[in-house]
Amino acid sequence: MSKINTKPLSGFMELKPAEQILFDKIKKTIEENYKLFGFIPMDNPLIERKEVLFAKAGGETETQIYELEKGDEKLALRFDLTVPLARYVADKYGELTFPFKRYQIAKVYRGERPQAGRFREFYQADIDIIGNENLPLSYDAEVIAIAIKIFQDLNLDATVRINNRKLFNGLFEFLNLSEKAESLMQIIDKLEKVGEEKIREYFLDEGLGESEISKIFEFLKIRKVEGLEKIKIENGIFEEGVKEVKEVFENLKALNISEEKFLLDTSIARGLGYYTGTIYETRLNKYPEFGSVCSGGRYENLASEYIDKKLPGVGISIGLSRLFDQLLKKGVIEPKEASYTKILILPLSENEKEFSLNLLSKIRAEKIPAEIDLDFDRKMQKRAKYAEKLKIPFVLFVGEDEVKDNIFSLKNFNTGEKIENLDFRKMLELLV
Amino acid sequence: MSKINTKPLSGFMELKPAEQILFDKIKKTIEENYKLFGFIPMDNPLIERKEVLFAKAGGETETQIYELEKGDEKLALRFDLTVPLARYVADKYGELTFPFKRYQIAKVYRGERPQAGRFREFYQADIDIIGNENLPLSYDAEVIAIAIKIFQDLNLDATVRINNRKLFNGLFEFLNLSEKAESLMQIIDKLEKVGEEKIREYFLDEGLGESEISKIFEFLKIRKVEGLEKIKIENGIFEEGVKEVKEVFENLKALNISEEKFLLDTSIARGLGYYTGTIYETRLNKYPEFGSVCSGGRYENLASEYIDKKLPGVGISIGLSRLFDQLLKKGVIEPKEASYTKILILPLSENEKEFSLNLLSKIRAEKIPAEIDLDFDRKMQKRAKYAEKLKIPFVLFVGEDEVKDNIFSLKNFNTGEKIENLDFRKMLELLV
Repeated sequence: MSKINTKPLSGFMELKPAEQILFDKIKKTIEENYKLFGFIPMDNPLIERKEVLFAKAGGETETQIYELEKGDEKLALRFDLTVPLARYVADKYGELTFPFKRYQIAKVYRGERPQAGRFREFYQADIDIIGNENLPLSYDAEVIAIAIKIFQDLNLDATVRINNRKLFNGLFEFLNLSEKAESLMQIIDKLEKVGEEKIREYFLDEGLGESEISKIFEFLKIRKVEGLEKIKIENGIFEEGVKEVKEVFENLKALNISEEKFLLDTSIARGLGYYTGTIYETRLNKYPEFGSVCSGGRYENLASEYIDKKLPGVGISIGLSRLFDQLLKKGVIEPKEASYTKILILPLSENEKEFSLNLLSKIRAEKIPAEIDLDFDRKMQKRAKYAEKLKIPFVLFVGEDEVKDNIFSLKNFNTGEKIENLDFRKMLELLV
Repeated sequence: MSKINTKPLSGFMELKPAEQILFDKIKKTIEENYKLFGFIPMDNPLIERKEVLFAKAGGETETQIYELEKGDEKLALRFDLTVPLARYVADKYGELTFPFKRYQIAKVYRGERPQAGRFREFYQADIDIIGNENLPLSYDAEVIAIAIKIFQDLNLDATVRINNRKLFNGLFEFLNLSEKAESLMQIIDKLEKVGEEKIREYFLDEGLGESEISKIFEFLKIRKVEGLEKIKIENGIFEEGVKEVKEVFENLKALNISEEKFLLDTSIARGLGYYTGTIYETRLNKYPEFGSVCSGGRYENLASEYIDKKLPGVGISIGLSRLFDQLLKKGVIEPKEASYTKILILPLSENEKEFSLNLLSKIRAEKIPAEIDLDFDRKMQKRAKYAEKLKIPFVLFVGEDEVKDNIFSLKNFNTGEKIENLDFRKMLELLV
């Protein structure tokens, strides 16, 4: 036995066949919805120039970048899908039609320390809508609508929480705390994790007074749009934020989206300075411990590092690998199909080979996935085992009679049932 | 303007939106056929341990591997899809059902010097059928059938050339040239490129006599199975090869495959020692200059470097990125669709917004890709331009009358035609 280690690398997801089929199904559901909403595919290289990635990385991300060297070029693997999008839009600015709506479902790389639930290679499923100079607010609702539709199609009870960074910016300006905005936002981000008492302590450490703290908490508890209108914060930016939230909610209702699928949550902050308007997080209501499974928001300028054009955008990202892994481990989803094949043809002997191959080609011509086993050296029981293991629903034994009469009997391997006396057409009907 | 270079790296394909839609369509055609023939998806990591890759690389390939380093691990990017398959099968041997039929359409990496038509990141579209201990010859025809079906579906006139390594091995044994087999095979590989005269010189350089050379050329000109039976080569291995070729051809006929789609070509050798039986190359008949667009063959043992099990297999690989690039540059294929969207809704003013969003949600509920533009600050002509540029077939203007009467007029942007007086159902019929 060789000593080469064939185990998958830690932090790299490697699925068994039935799991892969399930993963592909979920991926397809996401992709079909992205197309339904008018998004165009993108599939740019996994490798970028180092300088492209480092221009936008920063912080912890920068230390996680996988670098490559070959010849004179300093290259690295992308750590998200946004930076390559920004580079792409900057490079092809003159050739694109705006608003540019692209989707991409692809792998990204982060060389993190291996830890449970963290991947070093993982799929992200992103959409972004990029405007040239400006982008109407209506797209902020579009992006929420698609997230809601996807989780509905996946049979996952999800709620999108909506907030707006302008509410925070207005609030902090109103309280004369604008200089501390960044660190206050990071504190608020921890609210759900550490609780109100701890947050109050952090606020005190930041030098906030009781009246400021209580105003912030009053704000953070708002869960209805009307609440935003009642709280007394006289500030232009805050009012702009309220107007935006109202319009997003109006549009969602006009899009026929059930009101239990989205809510205002003033406590979500989404970390650092990137977002400038609407922000989103999505929770699975039965599994809050998964955290946000789909997040995003509105940003002012996609590609300022690469091009002197103002390119505002709004987007969301589903952490597909992580979501799949969590759903699988929790038993929420379960691999069922182990093959796409609908029928396995088993000729009894070499005599039925030609007839069976012919039949196979006719079944496939009807777009029905089909296989044949011509391994006459093995016992029939062993040959049929293949269908059982892969849960192929039907098995067709072909012997002298079938060849003579063109009449078939199917065995349903799921139910054990035998369906007899089928002509070719009737057999096809059972298979589709 | 920033100095960061946003151009795609040389050797890395980056498509414009309409090209990407076309690429995805071709990729989907390949994938649907792989499923139709009973193959299961695989999607393992792009990154492997260095030792896994180097155990099977060798030669030029080894120098092309992109290496990565992060922490203690020595990692690298895969250079093909076969090595990761071998590692996967070795690792999950006990959990797989054999014959294991997997497909994978994914990117691989080779750090070549940039040159026309060569990619450093490219898609391969592979299938392999792996047996446990043995694998019936019938699968060799299956693999050809699928290649033929794919090129038919892509409207590309292709012919699969079939040969068998046992014919070469038998011929060389018969001529007492077995020791020179490897180098003779490499000479034969060059036949099409350099011509018969040059090959004759190479043979002479190898020390071959006139009678040996003329026997080899007699063999290399055979294009019919009957020819194999007429040539006088009394050798067991050769006869085995003839038997195999005959069976493969028999099976292809039984699978209803038109005889002009495949032929025996004794001059294809497929390089080095990996293949042991049937070998294939596929040419596009109108574009022989593309070389082989789909190649593969039968091998004795997939994963001997990783596991002490005999795992014979047969497979093919389509060089998808290269094929796409060649077809595009030659003008054989042309990007037509610039969007998946079927209809763009254009409300005339804010007054029709709610109604239009509602309509949009109903159209999408019918699985018809649809978009809306709510950018009332721009002139209508500019808003409609989006549909024109993306070749969205229909535009629906929504004004007071539409809201009042629920009767719609569609403008077909391809033909300029206006279709009037449609109720919602009739409008849907036009869109599907």
